[in-house]
Amino acid sequence: MSTNRLEAFSDGVIAVAITLLVLNIELPTLKAGESLAGGLLAQWPVYAAYAVSFLTIGIIWINHHVMIGRLREADRTILFLNLLLLMSIAVLPFATRLAAAYLKKSHGQHLATGVYSGAFLLMAVFFSALNQHILLTKAHLLHTEIPLEQRRQILYRSITGVAPYAIATALAVVSSYLTLAICGALAIFYALPIGSGGVEPAG
Amino acid sequence: MSTNRLEAFSDGVIAVAITLLVLNIELPTLKAGESLAGGLLAQWPVYAAYAVSFLTIGIIWINHHVMIGRLREADRTILFLNLLLLMSIAVLPFATRLAAAYLKKSHGQHLATGVYSGAFLLMAVFFSALNQHILLTKAHLLHTEIPLEQRRQILYRSITGVAPYAIATALAVVSSYLTLAICGALAIFYALPIGSGGVEPAG
Amino acid sequence: MSTNRLEAFSDGVIAVAITLLVLNIELPTLKAGESLAGGLLAQWPVYAAYAVSFLTIGIIWINHHVMIGRLREADRTILFLNLLLLMSIAVLPFATRLAAAYLKKSHGQHLATGVYSGAFLLMAVFFSALNQHILLTKAHLLHTEIPLEQRRQILYRSITGVAPYAIATALAVVSSYLTLAICGALAIFYALPIGSGGVEPAG
Amino acid sequence: MSTNRLEAFSDGVIAVAITLLVLNIELPTLKAGESLAGGLLAQWPVYAAYAVSFLTIGIIWINHHVMIGRLREADRTILFLNLLLLMSIAVLPFATRLAAAYLKKSHGQHLATGVYSGAFLLMAVFFSALNQHILLTKAHLLHTEIPLEQRRQILYRSITGVAPYAIATALAVVSSYLTLAICGALAIFYALPIGSGGVEPAG
Repeated sequence: MSTNRLEAFSDGVIAVAITLLVLNIELPTLKAGESLAGGLLAQWPVYAAYAVSFLTIGIIWINHHVMIGRLREADRTILFLNLLLLMSIAVLPFATRLAAAYLKKSHGQHLATGVYSGAFLLMAVFFSALNQHILLTKAHLLHTEIPLEQRRQILYRSITGVAPYAIATALAVVSSYLTLAICGALAIFYALPIGSGGVEPAG
Repeated sequence: MSTNRLEAFSDGVIAVAITLLVLNIELPTLKAGESLAGGLLAQWPVYAAYAVSFLTIGIIWINHHVMIGRLREADRTILFLNLLLLMSIAVLPFATRLAAAYLKKSHGQHLATGVYSGAFLLMAVFFSALNQHILLTKAHLLHTEIPLEQRRQILYRSITGVAPYAIATALAVVSSYLTLAICGALAIFYALPIGSGGVEPAG
Repeated sequence: MSTNRLEAFSDGVIAVAITLLVLNIELPTLKAGESLAGGLLAQWPVYAAYAVSFLTIGIIWINHHVMIGRLREADRTILFLNLLLLMSIAVLPFATRLAAAYLKKSHGQHLATGVYSGAFLLMAVFFSALNQHILLTKAHLLHTEIPLEQRRQILYRSITGVAPYAIATALAVVSSYLTLAICGALAIFYALPIGSGGVEPAG
Repeated sequence: MSTNRLEAFSDGVIAVAITLLVLNIELPTLKAGESLAGGLLAQWPVYAAYAVSFLTIGIIWINHHVMIGRLREADRTILFLNLLLLMSIAVLPFATRLAAAYLKKSHGQHLATGVYSGAFLLMAVFFSALNQHILLTKAHLLHTEIPLEQRRQILYRSITGVAPYAIATALAVVSSYLTLAICGALAIFYALPIGSGGVEPAG
């Protein structure tokens, strides 16, 4: 299978998932005497989780493009691993809503942000697994031959990107705010040109 | 009509349907004294039905690509049959929600999972009908000539894929869990390289 | 502007609109003592309106493809008229929900199905307006020169397709069931190869 | 990175966002004795905000196409700025719902339409920022060399398009109706061929 339609389908799923995030932002239910301004401000976790998820999905889209761009064609195993990766992206609107709803609550906030960060962790793991499969097992399907040393380097960076999400997930036990902050910092770091080497090199 | 835009539109519908599935996963409504962990675990049928539907739609997307990839151009009848196939895929988010909501209930569980599995059955029937129309009636629209014997073989595999869903649907009378398990097993079987010949050969 | 991205964007909007229709199909709220089977059957107008809208949007997609396929490039006016056409398609999920919710009610059923059929009417009008603009005013943007007589013929068929929806809308005053039945009959007629000449010739 | 997939992903996000707007149009909840006609008419702000947002997103899509169409390839900074632009477009369904829900209310209407118009303002700012980055900083990535004077002219028009939204946002303090009317007038003005030079020249 040529990678054209694989890219088109993946683009479609990622574009829908990133845009569906907005359904998590609901009109605030105002308590008696509460102003709209107060109600809108009170739901700041919804906006924070939205922005973090939007940027993170946007970055994974860029990295996905680079990863698949190296491929000449795809086989069944690649399609299957890609499907798992897409599933981990497609569930993010739910994980985002969960984290936003419980961030400020006294009960469940640690679990909710742990699930949120854990969803990013799962995404990073599936991404690395697919990257490893492409670069090591299916190197003959690449557009141009890449020396093993360089392929290992690309993969190393990809796997390194898993660690911060593992840490963020573990720290959810300590503080849900901290976990959200780390996820946000990672999104900004990887989005900036300086951090682009962290998960996946641009070229 | 060239098949390019037919593929683009079908990819779009399938990508939206597979991503809309996430809207079925709602925040759990916690009973008095129930923890978030308990609430999240209690709705496991929602996750199970989600995963089964996601993988199944992903596989039908792969098979759809292979089927349309053989075509040089499409005529009205192909467009119409493809539209019916897309409709059977687009209703899956509803069928998935129905099965998840009733799986553990004492009333309606058999019907709900029967509808769920029946939706997959319908999809498999429309897929086979379109495949038969392309391979037997419209063979002159194929990219390259395929010997009748080989076309019959492809079609035979396609039609064979209908039977397991018919069985799963019939068994919903016995147990809703069994039906969901069969649908899940089919999704994993077809997703794995070893099972790829079951519905449609990859090449 | 080349028509490639115009087609891609239009395909995207139409694919999302046609797939969003499924959100109209909700789990039935069962009354005391009502079975799931009873609840599912009682909401048959939801399924009927869904199928009619799905097929109708599918057909307009095919016709849209044929119409834009004649164009070599698009100018601002074409983009604007196309945007209006897309808007009339994008509101169909709402019109469909309205018709389904009121079809069986004693109050509001005539208005609801009138709005539903009126939405199709609007879509047909915008389609014809865009077609007329392309075929008569912007004929120099066509891929290949088409004799005026033939262009008028294509346009005539396109405009003829408006009438049945006008009739269906007017008849909503008499019976909401009749209006839905006409819209459904039109969808099936245009979908079948025999009716393909009614709105737009396939070639 | 070639701009092909950047365009495809952006088209996808914009197409989903523009189509998701329809979810803001809900069935009216009828008060005792209220007719469906009355209920439908009473929610006219929902339709007005819908139409304004639909046209505005449609226009930004056209302008986006022209802007990216000048690029030969994209780098990380362009991808990041484009992601911010897409985020400002993707939140519009929420801003639209907010404005529609509060337009007629005695409390919160000024803030709600201010947020609505402010979302358009943000979109215009991100659009201009990306345009400036492409035309001035990354001019070596353009398809064909454009004289500095002409690039400045394009940019000037782009930045000029920001002002009306700043005014509309400021005027929300005075009247929410006025703000909505200005946003609507801008959408129609830019959509018409005569106004196409306002934000971005078509060629």
